[in-house]
Amino acid sequence: MKFLAAINVMPLKEILDPQGKAVTGSMKNLGLPEIQNVRIGRHITLEIEAETETLACKKVELACKNLLANMIMENFTFQLKII
Amino acid sequence: MKFLAAINVMPLKEILDPQGKAVTGSMKNLGLPEIQNVRIGRHITLEIEAETETLACKKVELACKNLLANMIMENFTFQLKII
Repeated sequence: MKFLAAINVMPLKEILDPQGKAVTGSMKNLGLPEIQNVRIGRHITLEIEAETETLACKKVELACKNLLANMIMENFTFQLKII
Repeated sequence: MKFLAAINVMPLKEILDPQGKAVTGSMKNLGLPEIQNVRIGRHITLEIEAETETLACKKVELACKNLLANMIMENFTFQLKII
């Protein structure tokens, strides 16, 4: 079976997100001061071939932990769907 | 009311994603050749104060078009929830 994984990698809440802070500041200049607390991470989509959803899940987790996310500074969540 | 917006900004399908291509290649070295077609974009969360959901929606759209996404090379999707 082929699955599509949609992964979100975000900086941990405890960690300062300078890019997000800069964008929050820019929102004011854009006339949108009601936008606050912007945080910026990565959205990753990938296709994975696996026999079962459990197996696909494990492989995506492995890919996240070893390559896609820096577990010291970031956490990740993902969803799988069959394609 | 206060809303939390979760925005995904992704490179258009027609556009080459060199970062995604590089990661797809690395998956092989990681022992995960079953992962293919990696595409990498941005996941952005922000808080927005607005009277109605429709108004919040319009403001997030404005922020995306004017600052968060490059509409020539990227598209965006978002979801709002009340917090």
